[in-house]
Amino acid sequence: MSDNRDLIRTKDEDIFRLEEILALLSWDQETGMPEKAIEGRSDQMAWIQRQISDRITDPQWESLLLSLNSKAKSLEDKVWSENLSRRYRLNKCLPVEFMSEFVRTTSIARDAWQQARKEEDFSLFQPYLEKVVDMVRKRAELTGYDGEPYNALLDIYEPGMTADKLESIFNPLQEALIPLIDKAIFLQEPKAPGVFSYDVEKQKKLHLQLLDKMGYDLRRGRMDFSVHPFTTTPGSKDIRITTHLMEDDFLNGLYSTMHEGGHGLYEQNLPALWARTMNGQACSLGFHESQSRLWENIIGRSRAFWDYFAPLMKNYFPQQMRGQNETSLFLFSNRVERSLIRVDADEFTYNLHIILRFRLERMIVNGEAKVSELPELWKEESRKLLEVVPETLCEGVLQDIHWSLGDWGYFPTYTLGNLYSAQLWASLKRDIPHVDSRIGQGDFSTILSWLTEHVHQSASMLSPDKMIKEISGETLNSRYFIDYLKGKLNDLYAD
Amino acid sequence: MSDNRDLIRTKDEDIFRLEEILALLSWDQETGMPEKAIEGRSDQMAWIQRQISDRITDPQWESLLLSLNSKAKSLEDKVWSENLSRRYRLNKCLPVEFMSEFVRTTSIARDAWQQARKEEDFSLFQPYLEKVVDMVRKRAELTGYDGEPYNALLDIYEPGMTADKLESIFNPLQEALIPLIDKAIFLQEPKAPGVFSYDVEKQKKLHLQLLDKMGYDLRRGRMDFSVHPFTTTPGSKDIRITTHLMEDDFLNGLYSTMHEGGHGLYEQNLPALWARTMNGQACSLGFHESQSRLWENIIGRSRAFWDYFAPLMKNYFPQQMRGQNETSLFLFSNRVERSLIRVDADEFTYNLHIILRFRLERMIVNGEAKVSELPELWKEESRKLLEVVPETLCEGVLQDIHWSLGDWGYFPTYTLGNLYSAQLWASLKRDIPHVDSRIGQGDFSTILSWLTEHVHQSASMLSPDKMIKEISGETLNSRYFIDYLKGKLNDLYAD
Repeated sequence: MSDNRDLIRTKDEDIFRLEEILALLSWDQETGMPEKAIEGRSDQMAWIQRQISDRITDPQWESLLLSLNSKAKSLEDKVWSENLSRRYRLNKCLPVEFMSEFVRTTSIARDAWQQARKEEDFSLFQPYLEKVVDMVRKRAELTGYDGEPYNALLDIYEPGMTADKLESIFNPLQEALIPLIDKAIFLQEPKAPGVFSYDVEKQKKLHLQLLDKMGYDLRRGRMDFSVHPFTTTPGSKDIRITTHLMEDDFLNGLYSTMHEGGHGLYEQNLPALWARTMNGQACSLGFHESQSRLWENIIGRSRAFWDYFAPLMKNYFPQQMRGQNETSLFLFSNRVERSLIRVDADEFTYNLHIILRFRLERMIVNGEAKVSELPELWKEESRKLLEVVPETLCEGVLQDIHWSLGDWGYFPTYTLGNLYSAQLWASLKRDIPHVDSRIGQGDFSTILSWLTEHVHQSASMLSPDKMIKEISGETLNSRYFIDYLKGKLNDLYAD
Repeated sequence: MSDNRDLIRTKDEDIFRLEEILALLSWDQETGMPEKAIEGRSDQMAWIQRQISDRITDPQWESLLLSLNSKAKSLEDKVWSENLSRRYRLNKCLPVEFMSEFVRTTSIARDAWQQARKEEDFSLFQPYLEKVVDMVRKRAELTGYDGEPYNALLDIYEPGMTADKLESIFNPLQEALIPLIDKAIFLQEPKAPGVFSYDVEKQKKLHLQLLDKMGYDLRRGRMDFSVHPFTTTPGSKDIRITTHLMEDDFLNGLYSTMHEGGHGLYEQNLPALWARTMNGQACSLGFHESQSRLWENIIGRSRAFWDYFAPLMKNYFPQQMRGQNETSLFLFSNRVERSLIRVDADEFTYNLHIILRFRLERMIVNGEAKVSELPELWKEESRKLLEVVPETLCEGVLQDIHWSLGDWGYFPTYTLGNLYSAQLWASLKRDIPHVDSRIGQGDFSTILSWLTEHVHQSASMLSPDKMIKEISGETLNSRYFIDYLKGKLNDLYAD
């Protein structure tokens, strides 16, 4: 038995070593690889990817995991066997030919999506998207599901999640959001501050200082630039984030950094004992997103945060900050707008963008609507949920890359992240008195300790639903998030 | 046969794909990896290294290569079989246990070397160096040799090279250098220019402009910073160089960049048809070094180069360059000094530093001297060759890292590079009239074309001795280099 356990650990680590190498290859591609190197890099990555797949689907796993499970002496080992089995099952059911076809199809579809955006012509994308949808449905069939095909996809990203569960959470959320958005827009001042220029190198220095304050360890991490910010793990002590800083928009870059910083803190504080194993990974994508949203929104857009951060901004950018103060920046960072683009959406409207996508992709995957109907369905849903209708396809059905890549069932994790973050925050506030005044002083250490103890160190020892129940005493629901937004409105416009 | 050829190509490419991945892991380690990531990175690199070794020493090679050789229809295939066989032979003879012991021993010896430098105490290094020497001798025995053990090591880095051949080249070189150094020092003005501050970001911009002029393609490359500059190949279209720029010394950084640029141009212009194969690699380390030395010294320290570069320096650093001109910078970049440190040595004295190391390591490897005698031998040789005697161990026997790493037989490639570069330059000048005036206009394109045609595109189709004979009509000798230095002295102090 001990031998088997060691063997399993070795095999598990082998896979994560390869994942780390893949992460570096990919990080490099996004941050600074020479443009003409792309073909060679794809080939290197495909080779590593094949090594990973071979190991994950190695037939030897099955009996090994059974033996681990039946003889497990600790809960950890029991969970380990389950986590490993889940990965094995999810991958073993997908034949190699299917997966290479999947990669090929989505790669072509991605190009078609870009072309369609350029030409503002959905018909250029439609046939490729239809193929992607076919493959996504096939994947659901191969993976298996209870209830409806879409559940198979949800479960990949958020273990245990179903469409019905989501609706029961999203419905009351939607109902509460619509009047809150009205109220926020009614109360806020119409004017936006002027446009200034903020030196990017200075912003970077400031952000590194902030990351350090947040507890992000730069001896085990680094911050770079990329078009789309991300967090990646080229080693268990090598957690990298990227950000995207703009000369004329300091808020956008600030929240990119804090968002990825939140992801980075999760990765940096996972249990070292379980490094490079399935038990040492984040609980789910929704939980991962909860950490980024918590730092970006709940902390980063709070009044207390600006008490700490406004003086720093004034130090770094005295001219640009003339006439600004804690309150004006707090208000500025919380402007609400019924906009068309998800990635630019504020805290109040963001989840409606997700609900829209969730409803559409559920229909498509379950065969209740056709790909050809998507542009019109998008407009209808947008009118219903956001009271705005896209005039162009790039503002509508062509705005996100996800569907072209085959990432169906992924969007909901963004809203799950928002809801988890509010529910976690309520528990954290219960446990840590005066958290606002700590934030106001730039002291994030107790927050990080609490998150580390309750979330990061649990890694994937608990399923997401058990984890949130364990921490907050309740299953996931939208009440905390709604209460949080109501509180935010009070903070913003108390007088 | 055709099947075998395809199979061989696939297997050859498999190895180089892994070499590329290893190169990226290593590049990242030197340029920006978080400090605490080192353990995980070593593990990743060791894993890739094992994959490479397994493939290189795969017993299947032997019969495959025989069949390729016997049925080869083209000279290229014949050479390919020989190049592959050489790599197979050189690696197969070293048992896995020996190699892991070698890695372990040199890793410990490297630490001991650093410790000994810190404490200025050779006895802290001696026992570890003795172990390294034992292993290096063992390696020579396992590899096999004609004549003396040291020849086995030379051949690893410079195929076909022997200690006797080297002496026959180094002896006249040494004899010619000593009076030339006297003359150079006698003629030059004693004063050195003042110390200024040169913004590193500005230097970087200037160097990127220069690299572009040299023909280094930044769409297939990039330039970063590292403590010890290097060139590496994470892909056949991804050739990266690093440099080391100093705020107070623009020449040092400039020649780092040009040196690595020369290496980079070699790699970028290797034949694409043979990419990722043994036939697509540089001819030898000496030839590789010839390219860096040619750009760094023969071009970079020429009067013509300063005609082109002095105005640029004045553009970027007008205040610091006040009072300087083409001539003063030409003189400044060619100061000669009998110094103790190899890496700081000028063109006139550099090769004496190498001859010193060559003589000592030949004695040690062949068992004619003991490691314990090295500090005294170093002093003696230094007095004889350079007329200076180190006062500290860091200026003497402890100055280079190479011996601790097991790189015995490597030093001579530096001087070989200098000699090749002068011999190549003479041929190039014969073929390209008015090359100086082209350089003076910042037009390096004909030089690069010539090098590409004669050196880069030949890759390892010819052995180094055949290659230099083919290009220059002579075997390698020191006459061209000596003539080059004499010409340099004339240029410098003609009046």
